[in-house]
Amino acid sequence: MSLYEDKVKLAVNGKTGVCVGLDPVLTKLPMSIQGLDEPFFEFNRRIIEATSAYASAYKPNLAFYEVLGADGWRQLEKTIQVIPRDKLVIADAKRGDIGNTAVAYASAMFEKLGADAVTVNPYLGSDAVSPFVEREDKGIFLLVVTSNKGASELQQLEANGRSIFQHVLDMGGRLNQNRNVGFVVGATDSVSLPKVLAGADNSPLLIPGVGAQGGDIQALRLALKDYAGPVLVNSSRGIIYASNGDDFAETAGIETQKLFDELNN
Amino acid sequence: MSLYEDKVKLAVNGKTGVCVGLDPVLTKLPMSIQGLDEPFFEFNRRIIEATSAYASAYKPNLAFYEVLGADGWRQLEKTIQVIPRDKLVIADAKRGDIGNTAVAYASAMFEKLGADAVTVNPYLGSDAVSPFVEREDKGIFLLVVTSNKGASELQQLEANGRSIFQHVLDMGGRLNQNRNVGFVVGATDSVSLPKVLAGADNSPLLIPGVGAQGGDIQALRLALKDYAGPVLVNSSRGIIYASNGDDFAETAGIETQKLFDELNN
Repeated sequence: MSLYEDKVKLAVNGKTGVCVGLDPVLTKLPMSIQGLDEPFFEFNRRIIEATSAYASAYKPNLAFYEVLGADGWRQLEKTIQVIPRDKLVIADAKRGDIGNTAVAYASAMFEKLGADAVTVNPYLGSDAVSPFVEREDKGIFLLVVTSNKGASELQQLEANGRSIFQHVLDMGGRLNQNRNVGFVVGATDSVSLPKVLAGADNSPLLIPGVGAQGGDIQALRLALKDYAGPVLVNSSRGIIYASNGDDFAETAGIETQKLFDELNN
Repeated sequence: MSLYEDKVKLAVNGKTGVCVGLDPVLTKLPMSIQGLDEPFFEFNRRIIEATSAYASAYKPNLAFYEVLGADGWRQLEKTIQVIPRDKLVIADAKRGDIGNTAVAYASAMFEKLGADAVTVNPYLGSDAVSPFVEREDKGIFLLVVTSNKGASELQQLEANGRSIFQHVLDMGGRLNQNRNVGFVVGATDSVSLPKVLAGADNSPLLIPGVGAQGGDIQALRLALKDYAGPVLVNSSRGIIYASNGDDFAETAGIETQKLFDELNN
């Protein structure tokens, strides 16, 4: 068991874990937050505080911070510092680049930001992924089947009798010496999900697509019932924008508990 | 002709253009630069000044800035501000994400950073790419064949009688209503390069892999001789680290001219 595997297991604690997506958009924040100096940080800080009893992981998507450039990155760095240590911090960056550039991205995500895991795009091949899996206390979630409509265009093509996404699962398996390779599979694709579960070797799974994206939670529970690896189900907008009034944090907490209960009880 | 197409044609001016990769690594900078408050910005500023006579484009790879977090982003933002307007600024970000997240990345790259173009990863499908091609004054370079060893693992798989990278070319063609979709193809793969040229519909090409990565310039010239679209050949380490003494900028200028001459004379 690797340090990373320990950390993931601690975070989910034998349950199907809820991952809260921290995707702040200025115009969607409560008016009382929009006017602050660090609106993303203050919003996130209060969301984290209100949801941590039922959340196993937090997943900031870097796109929403990069909209503000350097200032966004600073608020992201501060956000990660206030996430409790027993939660998994997933930098949803979908990075992927070659050689020394991948090394730089791994350093940015793990050392500078302090994330525990990062989402990685497989298109460039395994040498572009391997710099992210060298540390046994950090891990990745490799994009396998995404939750959008266009996902099928490349991911579902068949080569040598197997889908491209199955080739990606194979790639992840080959890179899993440190037991720190997990997979992203969208809840919206009920046909591919069982195939991913069958090929994922009980690795950690990150499942987006419930909530605002419309994935069915009961169908997801049924599909997951024999999977022995750790599972994180992500909801972003469904939790953080459940209210845009001054009760946003409290409401996010209620929605997090509700999702946890739907997944586990 | 779109505004973006005009901009690319102005930048290359009927030649095979040189793209200078701005990939700063602190320990590789001249000692006199390492100690400054904004070492990446100062290094880049002097490189840009010394190379602009023979460079058509500048391509900062975001990984190298993210290593420094918010401070790196700030130096990147400042760098882009000092690049002359008649050059193409390519944010080498290899981004790719779904729906509203892709919209956020496009805003980050085009509005916040002020880049003219961005490199985009195709794995998630065309709806993940389309937010980057909506503005007719901005463009993309879609990753088709990358210059690393692992490139073949997914990119060269055959599905429905065509390589995955050819499916990516098709995707780019479908997204090219604004004539602002270009392609990345590595100089290191002499077998795939002619196939990409044949399927690229005279769109702009960004070709990495010469210089430190070993691609052969004479073979590249020969392959390109009948291609009518704009071509940018990138060199990063071969130019910016040609000297690590106080003559680094002057030496970078000489190397840029040398590459330009090798490509054109």
